[in-house]
Amino acid sequence: MRTEEISAEYRRFIEEYLHIWLKKFENEPQKILYDAMSYSLFAGGKRIRPILTLEFCRMCCGDYTKAAPFAAAIEMIQTYSLIHDDLPAMDNDDYRRGKLTNHKVYGEGIAILAGDALLSDAFACVASANLPAKDIALAVGVLAENIGSLGMVGGQVLDILSEERELSEQEVLDIQSRKTGALINASCALGVIAAGGSEEQLRAACGFAGLLGLAFQIRDDMLDVIGTQDEMGKGVGTDAEKNTFVRLYGLAKCEELVDKYTAAAISQLDVFTDNEYIISLAKSLTGRKN
Amino acid sequence: MRTEEISAEYRRFIEEYLHIWLKKFENEPQKILYDAMSYSLFAGGKRIRPILTLEFCRMCCGDYTKAAPFAAAIEMIQTYSLIHDDLPAMDNDDYRRGKLTNHKVYGEGIAILAGDALLSDAFACVASANLPAKDIALAVGVLAENIGSLGMVGGQVLDILSEERELSEQEVLDIQSRKTGALINASCALGVIAAGGSEEQLRAACGFAGLLGLAFQIRDDMLDVIGTQDEMGKGVGTDAEKNTFVRLYGLAKCEELVDKYTAAAISQLDVFTDNEYIISLAKSLTGRKN
Repeated sequence: MRTEEISAEYRRFIEEYLHIWLKKFENEPQKILYDAMSYSLFAGGKRIRPILTLEFCRMCCGDYTKAAPFAAAIEMIQTYSLIHDDLPAMDNDDYRRGKLTNHKVYGEGIAILAGDALLSDAFACVASANLPAKDIALAVGVLAENIGSLGMVGGQVLDILSEERELSEQEVLDIQSRKTGALINASCALGVIAAGGSEEQLRAACGFAGLLGLAFQIRDDMLDVIGTQDEMGKGVGTDAEKNTFVRLYGLAKCEELVDKYTAAAISQLDVFTDNEYIISLAKSLTGRKN
Repeated sequence: MRTEEISAEYRRFIEEYLHIWLKKFENEPQKILYDAMSYSLFAGGKRIRPILTLEFCRMCCGDYTKAAPFAAAIEMIQTYSLIHDDLPAMDNDDYRRGKLTNHKVYGEGIAILAGDALLSDAFACVASANLPAKDIALAVGVLAENIGSLGMVGGQVLDILSEERELSEQEVLDIQSRKTGALINASCALGVIAAGGSEEQLRAACGFAGLLGLAFQIRDDMLDVIGTQDEMGKGVGTDAEKNTFVRLYGLAKCEELVDKYTAAAISQLDVFTDNEYIISLAKSLTGRKN
């Protein structure tokens, strides 16, 4: 099967799981909350992170369908972070992926609460997995550490603080590894954990995730400069004043670094025998045009 | 020992745990995030919910010091919910317990992120407990269900929606049992879970929590009407237009209901032999003047 077909199959699987999960709540009186959650959950995301969870589970010889609650939780957390990032008090974005942002449709109060609910419910989802308790407890710890004050939220704060000054290379790497890398890290790790994988597999998955996250973010910064609004579905050039990799290195050097980090990420995958799809996925993600 | 002395001892224990927990991060560059989290964590809360966690653990013959990460998580979640509730897009409060609210000190962006970090880190805290994995996994599920879209956040949404119309008694009960009751429920349940308590003890704890939560909220609504600003440390009379229990029943009937629900809550505690302190605590909470 071609890479894109496998991705589409995983995507269909995740979206069906999310639909069934949301359907459980259809008779609740707080319908607008679920509408707001659903709006952003189905606003056209590429499901890259939950695909990583399912694929790492499969590569560790696990039953990837059992990793569905972990994968769904990852997507819920990605979605919550986008809703809160777009708020007027944060990036103040009106559009994302060509659609109005959550608070533009539902108002700020509901958007904040939809994010809070997705974040909370993500942990309920993890806890509901039909997996050994030790794997669930480990997954909760890994996920929470990666998205909390030391991880994704911490990176977001550092990014806000950094707008006032120019950063060193080390600082940019630190911010991005938290802001983008940490959730990618959790996505890969939770796949290994769902499969009951070995320490060696967990280390390899995290090594891969860290390097992939960097290559992915550098590509993102490049696209912000060279992409067109139509291709990206959001405003471009908005990061011009921010401490991006393009500002730090320039476009040519960024292209080199994407290749270097992608190759380094792929080199971590030797421990997995059946790694054709993930290698191809990594290449397509870091070589993407939008 | 007198009730207030035991409460003070528990409070000291929880606050020390939270201080040590925060100290781990003192060399992180996102210092302002920890400052904002710390500001609201130590803004004078009475620690009622984590005290319930520790005491239910003790009543189930558990070592309450082992329940500390669960109790701390409960307080972190209570704090996150207050920070987000006070935001301009929500209740738009400038003061809480006589101090400026988080966003008035740190700005809206950091306040949103401090709430997000407290919510995420709470689950890291639960996962870090030195307890059997099955108890951690169960605690995560119970906590997440109680604070997410079906619980606390759902109640908050229903409360916002209800501002436009008058509610039935059943609707007010439903909103309050989610908005206030759900976290009290989780607080008591997590104590039983930390002790490895029985199904019967868990049921009793949840029964107690539901009734205590109601009595507590009715008292809260009454104090909003009869309290003075000085006693409450926040604006009073601000709920006059909301669907409170006072609006539904009037003050005299509310006093009766507080007594009724408090007695019913206490009657759930027979399954615990050493229940003197919790009974006395319940009475003081529902009979409080501020």
